[in-house]
Parts: sequence; structure tokens; C-alpha cells
Amino acid sequence: MEATAEEVGLAVTAARDAAPALADRAVRTAFLRTAADLLQEAGDRLVEAADAETALGPVRLTGELARTCFQLRAFADIVDEGAFLGVVIDHPDGSATPPIPDLRRYKIPLGVVAVYSASNFPFAFSVPGGDTASALAAGCPVVVKAHPDHPGTSELVASVLRRAAARHDIPEGVVGLVHGFEAGIELVKHPLVAGAGFTGSIRGGRALFDAAAARPVPIPFHGELGSLNPVVVTEAAAAERGEEIGTGLAGSMTLGVGQFCVKPGLVLAPEGAGGDRLVKSLTDAVGDTDAGVLLDHRMRDNFVAGVRERAGLADVDSPVTPGAGGEHTVSAGFFTVPAARLAAEGEHDLLIEECFGPVTVVARYKDAAEITAVLSRLPGNLTATVQLSSDEAAGVSPRGTELLAEVTPLAGRVLVDGWPTGVAVAPAQHHGGPYPATTSTSTSVGGTAIERWLRPVAYQNTPEPLLPPELRDDNPLGLPRRVDGTLEH
Amino acid sequence: MEATAEEVGLAVTAARDAAPALADRAVRTAFLRTAADLLQEAGDRLVEAADAETALGPVRLTGELARTCFQLRAFADIVDEGAFLGVVIDHPDGSATPPIPDLRRYKIPLGVVAVYSASNFPFAFSVPGGDTASALAAGCPVVVKAHPDHPGTSELVASVLRRAAARHDIPEGVVGLVHGFEAGIELVKHPLVAGAGFTGSIRGGRALFDAAAARPVPIPFHGELGSLNPVVVTEAAAAERGEEIGTGLAGSMTLGVGQFCVKPGLVLAPEGAGGDRLVKSLTDAVGDTDAGVLLDHRMRDNFVAGVRERAGLADVDSPVTPGAGGEHTVSAGFFTVPAARLAAEGEHDLLIEECFGPVTVVARYKDAAEITAVLSRLPGNLTATVQLSSDEAAGVSPRGTELLAEVTPLAGRVLVDGWPTGVAVAPAQHHGGPYPATTSTSTSVGGTAIERWLRPVAYQNTPEPLLPPELRDDNPLGLPRRVDGTLEH
Repeated sequence: MEATAEEVGLAVTAARDAAPALADRAVRTAFLRTAADLLQEAGDRLVEAADAETALGPVRLTGELARTCFQLRAFADIVDEGAFLGVVIDHPDGSATPPIPDLRRYKIPLGVVAVYSASNFPFAFSVPGGDTASALAAGCPVVVKAHPDHPGTSELVASVLRRAAARHDIPEGVVGLVHGFEAGIELVKHPLVAGAGFTGSIRGGRALFDAAAARPVPIPFHGELGSLNPVVVTEAAAAERGEEIGTGLAGSMTLGVGQFCVKPGLVLAPEGAGGDRLVKSLTDAVGDTDAGVLLDHRMRDNFVAGVRERAGLADVDSPVTPGAGGEHTVSAGFFTVPAARLAAEGEHDLLIEECFGPVTVVARYKDAAEITAVLSRLPGNLTATVQLSSDEAAGVSPRGTELLAEVTPLAGRVLVDGWPTGVAVAPAQHHGGPYPATTSTSTSVGGTAIERWLRPVAYQNTPEPLLPPELRDDNPLGLPRRVDGTLEH
Repeated sequence: MEATAEEVGLAVTAARDAAPALADRAVRTAFLRTAADLLQEAGDRLVEAADAETALGPVRLTGELARTCFQLRAFADIVDEGAFLGVVIDHPDGSATPPIPDLRRYKIPLGVVAVYSASNFPFAFSVPGGDTASALAAGCPVVVKAHPDHPGTSELVASVLRRAAARHDIPEGVVGLVHGFEAGIELVKHPLVAGAGFTGSIRGGRALFDAAAARPVPIPFHGELGSLNPVVVTEAAAAERGEEIGTGLAGSMTLGVGQFCVKPGLVLAPEGAGGDRLVKSLTDAVGDTDAGVLLDHRMRDNFVAGVRERAGLADVDSPVTPGAGGEHTVSAGFFTVPAARLAAEGEHDLLIEECFGPVTVVARYKDAAEITAVLSRLPGNLTATVQLSSDEAAGVSPRGTELLAEVTPLAGRVLVDGWPTGVAVAPAQHHGGPYPATTSTSTSVGGTAIERWLRPVAYQNTPEPLLPPELRDDNPLGLPRRVDGTLEH
């Protein structure tokens, strides 16, 4: 089942050979929409296959597939509009220093993109997921490295995508699929691979990032690696709605058995009565949560070992003890610890490392200085959340604005009075953040994810008949563009 | 003079401390414009200092300084307009799958940027150059690593920039300056450095790129490393205007003693009469070129050794022999070689490596297949140029379109019937290209160079009073933006 280096090479070459068929944007959009239609048609079979491999359950998986199809169509819309091409046209200007010739810039596809699937999203961050959808939308064929947690689903989905391609006379090699750890390394090193997208662990992602950077010709590596997703609850917020925050937190951290990259993994809550009520309601809600099945046994082992190690640290309490549930399941739980323990380097640093699964850490702070001290020690995150009182949220008290300014440098998405789980597919979405949240400044979800798979090229003094239609003065494709410095659409 | 690690740390920390003063875009634009004004005021002194260190001559240096000031003002205009912020606003949409919350995205400065100066542009690609101008425009303080070929000019220019900063109450640390090879390495490794821009050699750039990628927290490294800048002359073009092309080529390859990163270093010219006329006029024009001084003795040694080694290859002729001129100068020259010699790996690969200085290689081809064979062996380039006949340029013959399609994958800028030297500062400019031309997909010249120093952040369900003004519904700053999927400006 594992692909040899030769098989990886064949997949990459087949993908490269499919690229010309993606050059026509109308073909691309038709392909993306057909792919969404066919995935939906095959929904029952796909959900069944994915559930058998991941135990994520039909409700979650049906929703994930719907999201995936929505995403494919959203990228088709983006391609139709064409703003992503970044068309800029400058007519000659002799008054500039130095003079400006006729210059016309737009973006072209990078080439074959390697996509590394995630364990926890067999659809939305795997074969038909955001990396694949955005790469195809950009005009780049893909070779997907399947995740070993759902190889069968990956094959099924790839066959659906290839059927969609065939309907538009695109060679089936446009979506390649390989299995195996070594194949993944071969893939990122292949000379014809021009970029890579990855969703997974820090260790795995960093190894591939390093391989991408060490190539004779380095390539962009857009990896989403890991995130703690801190939450700060102000004293006033805890006083105002401690119970509600505790319940909301329980829902977010246990959602999908805690297997989301945006699970809130560290919560700064005040000492005192408000914080106590938060912890009490969190205790009740987490205590009521059923044991759940993690994606695979390795994850279960890591979770059980991880929570045990954390529980053993000084001053760490477990109002609800996380750990092994039944033979295959795990139970949700959480820890509390004085925030001061996290304010300086030490063995408690384990508590500011991501622990995949249904567990979070509530760090009780004395004052704003302790919040600042802990936040200053955090690595980069996909999200940061603040829970504010109504006065703080309304700007009546300056604390809300201050706190937003303090958490913004830490994350790619900042939430007020919400929970980070749930990543909308939307033009303004940013699912990325400072390292290790991502290895680049880009996003893997949302409209701008397409930007990752393009590079600009400028044509100088090129006669109109030789210009691509995207760059012609009369704008035959009706593209949004910047002409002589002015935006037009 | 060389900065210790501690001194590098102090410069970086001072830069970090200056960042808040750049947060206000109006302050940034005023600073950039004052910097341009003060540089112009100090022009005579700066040109004199630069000429003493680089021997580039007052005419070239005066032009370069004017370009540099134009560039600073151009980035101020870009900041005023605000499209670079990439504002996207999505209002809640419950009909999406999954539902879309209130999401508002824009871009924020990365942090302190390290700038590595070039030898060959003491102004435009050094302390006050495109990397610095675009980083400051983005809101990022800089620490510049001075080039050892012009340390005094670097100090002078930095002091002018700091004076401009002081006029707007920006701490002088906003433009740091360090000297020394080791200091350059320390700089790219410093934890507070968030990105780097580089213009220089493949060896030096790759070493810094590798260091940036190997950091515990990797950072974006935008390096412009080297380029051969191929030129393809069609048979019909040579027949139509072989002499003119030869003369134009001579002017471009000897401009500034061949010390431009966009110097045409490889020319594919046809065998036969048209190509012969091209070579003849090139011979006459290059033969008439005065000897010139290179930037430093190391470069002169490299040039002399490089051309000697190339001249010794089988089937290589030197109609005008390049090499040592006087004690400090070099003479321009060029080689001819059958294109077939470059079509397969071998010792002639040296001819498709950049040789810094006034030399080029004219490869004579038999047919289109030989052009394709040679192009397929080239590394990435900043530019690729085609010289076409009038019928080809008019699209009457398909050859022009075919050839453009063939060279586009090789370069970041494609020229028709022009010469690559001269890089306009313009919105549509793209001064970048596939590796090793650049280490990223970005540009170091032109309006979009600012994109390198920003990262997006999205705010979810954030009350209006807490939002930055850039993201408020009523658009108090009048920014171009995308709202609910629709572009507005």
C-alpha cells in the first residue's frame, strides 16, 4: 500500500501533465463544482467509510462533508471573480524616476502542490479539503499524501474527484494520492513539486518544513502545526457570567472529543468568586460528558500519558480527571493551576504545550500582571479568545481594548465572547497564526487561501496581441484590477 | 566596527521598541516623505560618499538616489490608499455551511525586519532601499546589515533616516544599522527579528535563508540571490534587425560595468546570417566599451577568474575577450558557443551560471528544439526577454505567443523587444522569480513589495467599539475593502 519513491514520481509527473488542462479558469470552476456535486451524491457511502475509519460519527462527518462541498464551490466563485489574479497594469510614464515602461502583472499557478492530510478531518482537511480546493482553484494539480487514519476514505474521495475531472476532460492525474510516511518525504523533495500544504502535528510538520527548506530549490511550505488557543476571562466577565463561561468552555473543549486544532487548551481565569463559579460550572459540564473514541490508538496513548504527566505537576488539581475511559475511549477532564506557575520557565511548561484530546488547563490569575506574564510565554496560536464583561465589550471600560491589543500578536484569529471551535469558510477567515500555528503567514481556510499557490509575473512592453487576456487594456474577462495606480472593478 | 552579538541585540531591541511609533499610518507616511526630502537635501554629500566607496560615478549615483526617494514617496502613497491592508469584512450569514459569524480581517506588521544590503546599489537596495522603504511602510522597524563595500555611505544614510524619524517623534532605533558578517548571521537568528529581506549572492543568500529556516521559530526570508536573465532572439528578429539587437545587447550587458542583477547573461541567437550580423554589431559595440571599475577587488578577481575559466571551454569563442583591464579595471567582452553545448549537463554548465560583471554568452542555435533544450536547463530568473520580428510581435506569426509561453515559467518579469536592465518602481513591477532569483514568490521592487512584511489577523464577533477603525462598518478611514464578498472602494 505504501508508495515507493518511483510511484511518488509517477503521481507527481501525472499531476504535472494535467496542469495544462487547468489553465482555463472556466474549466477549473466547472471541475470544482462537479466535484462538490459528486461528493454530495456519494455522501452516504463516504460518511460510512469515514466513520468506519475515524469513529467521528455520521452527524459530524455529514456536516464536515457539507462544509467541504461548500468550500469547493466557494473557491469556484473566487476563481470566477478573478480578484485573486492580482492584475495590475501600468501604462508608460516618462515622468517617473526612473521612467515606467508598460508593465502588466498578474499571478500564475505555481505548479504541482503536495497536500498532507490531517487525521481529524477526513474530508475538510484531507483529500478534498481546503488545501486541495484552493490549489485546484489556483490552477495547480495536487498529489495528496493520505493520512494513515483513513486510507480507504482517501481512496474513495480521490476516485470521486477524478471522476469529476474526467467529466471536464481533465486527466485523472490532476488529483494524485499516495500512502506512507516515506512517500510523504519523497513527495516534498520531488523536483516537480512546487509547494506544499500540511495540517498535523508540530513534529511531523516541522520535519517536512525542514525538508522543503533544504531542497536544492526550496519551495513554499504552508503547514498548520499546532495551537494552544488561549482564552482570557476578565475578572468582570467572570463576575458577570462565570457559570455561562464555564459551560461554554466545556462545550468547546470537549467538542469532537477535543480533537480540533482550535480547541481551547489554556484558560486564564481569575481567582475569587467569579472564577470559582466558572470552575464549578465547568466541573459539572465536563463531568457530564460521555467518554469518547479518539482517532487512533496512538492518540489515545499520547492523551493518557500526556494528562497523567500533567496531573503529576506541583499545584495542579484535576476537578474532573481526564484519562482512559473504557478500553478504546477517553474521558474528558481539566486541570487547574495557579497562573504564577506558568509565568516562568520550568516543568510547568508542559501545560502550555498542546495536548490533543478533551482536556484543558485553567490557570487562575491574581491580577493583570499575571495574565501578561503568562501570555508573554506562549508560542503562536491559531486563535486567542477574550471573555469580557458587558462594559468591557462596549468599550465603557478600557480593559477590553487593552486585552485585544495584548492577544492580537499571539494569534491569527481573535474572538470576543465566543469559542474558537468552528472555523467558518468565509472570505475574511484567517486560519493561521504565528509559528507553530502555521509555518507561513497564510491561511488554510477562507478566500485568501488561494494566494498560497500562485506567483506573480510581470510583462514589460508586450504587444497587446501577445498578452494573456487577463492583462489586455479592454479587460475582456471583466477582472477587478489596478490600472495606473487606481483600483477598478 | 563589526557589531558583536550583544550590539546586534541592542539594535534589534531598540527597533522593537520603536514599533509602536509606527502604528499610526499617518506618522509612517510623514516619516517616509521626510526621509525622501532629507535624503535629497543631503544628495551631494551622499553621492560623494557613495562614489568614493563604490566608484559607480556621480551620474549613476545621483539617478539611484532620485529613484530611492521616489520609492520612499511611492510607498507613502500606498500606505495612504490602504489597499495593502487587505480589509475583508463578512457579516454573519446563517445560510452558509457552517454558518459564518461576524469576521473581519486585515493585515498587521510582522515586527522587526532585518535588511541585508547589496553591494551594487548603495542607495536603492541598501539602507534606504526597497526593503527598508516597504518594511517601514508596513509598520515594521528595520535593522540593516550594511554592505562592506559602502559602510560609510550606510552610516550617513542611516543618520539621515534617523533625523527624519526624530522629526516625527519616532525613536531613532526604528532604523538600526550593523556591520560585519557574523553580525548578519546573529541578526537573522535573533528571536525578535520577524522577517528578512536580502539582495546579494546565491551563496550568501542561501546561507542566511538556511539560518532563517532553521530557527526554532522560522521567519520569512525574502532573498534576491542571482539571475542569468536569458534572452531569446528569434530567427526572424535577427533577420529583421540583427545589428540593432546586437547594439542594444551591448548597451544592456555593459551598463554599470555589468553589475546589475538583471544583466542579460545568456543570449540565444540563431545560426546564419541574421545571427552573424547580431554578433558582428555586438563585437563592434562591446569592443568600443571603456574598461570600468568593479565594486571591489574580490569581484574583480572573481570576474577575471570566471571569464578565464569560461574561455577555456571547448567550442567557446571570444569575439571580444573579457578580462582584466588596467590594474583596477576590467574590460567587457562576450563569448559565443553552439547552443547544443548547453543542452545537456556537462562542463559547459558554467555558461549558464551568473558571472557578475560585463560579460555575456551568445549561444547560437540551429532550431527551435535547441532553444527549448537550453531553456529547460536554466534555473529561475528575475527576467526573460524575447526579441521578435514585427510579424511575431503583432501576432501574425504564432511564434511570439509560443515563445512567451515558453519563457514565462522561467522568470518573474518577461520583456518583449526590450532589455532587462532598468527596473521601474511601479505598482505592477515584479522583481523576483523562481529560485534562485528569489527565495520566495514575492518582489523586492514595486507596490506589492509591502506585502512581505505583514500578516493577516481576523476578528470574530468583536463589538464595534473594540474594533480597529480599519475594520469598522462605517469605514472611517475610507479604505478599499471586500464586504460580504463584494469589492468596494
